[in-house]
Amino acid sequence: MIDLHLIGIGTGNPDHLTRAAIAAMNAADLILLPRKGRAKSDLIDLRREICAQVLTGATRIVEFDLPVRDPVAAYRDAVDRWHDAIAEVWAAQIAAHLPGGGRLGLLVWGDPSLYDSTLRIADRLRARGMAIRVHVEPGITSLQALTAAHAIPLNTLAAPVLITTGRRLRAEGWPPAIDTIAVMLDGGCAFETLAPDDLVIWWGAYLGMPHQALIAGPLALVADDIVRTRAALRDRHGWIMDIYVLRRSRGRL
Amino acid sequence: MIDLHLIGIGTGNPDHLTRAAIAAMNAADLILLPRKGRAKSDLIDLRREICAQVLTGATRIVEFDLPVRDPVAAYRDAVDRWHDAIAEVWAAQIAAHLPGGGRLGLLVWGDPSLYDSTLRIADRLRARGMAIRVHVEPGITSLQALTAAHAIPLNTLAAPVLITTGRRLRAEGWPPAIDTIAVMLDGGCAFETLAPDDLVIWWGAYLGMPHQALIAGPLALVADDIVRTRAALRDRHGWIMDIYVLRRSRGRL
Repeated sequence: MIDLHLIGIGTGNPDHLTRAAIAAMNAADLILLPRKGRAKSDLIDLRREICAQVLTGATRIVEFDLPVRDPVAAYRDAVDRWHDAIAEVWAAQIAAHLPGGGRLGLLVWGDPSLYDSTLRIADRLRARGMAIRVHVEPGITSLQALTAAHAIPLNTLAAPVLITTGRRLRAEGWPPAIDTIAVMLDGGCAFETLAPDDLVIWWGAYLGMPHQALIAGPLALVADDIVRTRAALRDRHGWIMDIYVLRRSRGRL
Repeated sequence: MIDLHLIGIGTGNPDHLTRAAIAAMNAADLILLPRKGRAKSDLIDLRREICAQVLTGATRIVEFDLPVRDPVAAYRDAVDRWHDAIAEVWAAQIAAHLPGGGRLGLLVWGDPSLYDSTLRIADRLRARGMAIRVHVEPGITSLQALTAAHAIPLNTLAAPVLITTGRRLRAEGWPPAIDTIAVMLDGGCAFETLAPDDLVIWWGAYLGMPHQALIAGPLALVADDIVRTRAALRDRHGWIMDIYVLRRSRGRL
């Protein structure tokens, strides 16, 4: 039996780790760390650093190369095949390093519930017949790091919030009957496709990391600055992860 | 100058505290703990217990009685006046216990960004002319504790999620073009107003606490069980906080 612990580790600030996450890391027999290629080597460095800071016992750490998503195939097909390939690699690592079963820890950026695929990949292991129990430790998401850094509430008083993706915002525009949206997984700047009048944006990149960047203001005034800053930061670091909240101000700019 | 630290403490499981939250609590000169009346005395006990577990230094703890919201007035008016009254009480506590300024810590259930009013109340202190800087430490929300306990993702693959309230769901029904909603602040069982066909629910109460309760399944099959369990638990404990995720299954029940 494999006890698979999906451990939310927050967004790069080791102080965002919960006590439960630290305990789950230390209780694991094995932690698998994915290598995502040179462009994102900061990310594996950060995971190594987190392990170095909090592991006190006999937990083994094994690194493995994460398969790469087909950049050409249709999005859903490519993601499905990519998850199949990752499940394959996990199974091989488990066979090699935990042949008699045990506790396997996987460190998940943010929280395993939000725009993360580890739960879906774990389902694939179960579908292959592996005896596996899944446990989740929640972690601070980049959305929470963003609202904390800007010291803003996500929702206005008792009002709803839509969490969506750059792809959806680009395809569907502003959703009906909602004043606040949080946009994640935006490979570009989907906010440029919106009429900026009456919108306020709170943007952040590399949240929780030492090179965190923040910009906020009326979208009409700061959109260009975000686009320029984002491009410059991506050039400098070789990768970027960013996120933003947009709110209709209804004249309260 | 008052440095006001709004510290997300999660949902009652002290192990959901982050290292940053623990550090902010210990760095505070004063922590104010609100008493919310006898029915919710579990909650102040939990905050006292969290303080007892993590404070190691000279932080002072002062308890104060939280004003009560007018249960009769229109919702928004009542909430606005209630927040005014809380700001008044905070100001009095600050004048009494931090007359020369300093670091004030307030412990916030969940995360200060999500359906919490401390940021709005802090704005009122600023509007009264108090010299105040606001800092936020994110915390694990009940929504994250719910998805972790059920070991489910919040979103389906790359799809949006609406976070809304029981009041909104009751008034407006299922939102257009969305397959997953998370419902918070539901004083009743607003899911009873929906046609249950094709909906799956993951429900939880007292998340993160020792008496956590979980129910999941097709809404048509488990709705009555949730209604009964919720009523029984509220009778037993004198109060209840619960939350749920609903998903259209599109035939994949």
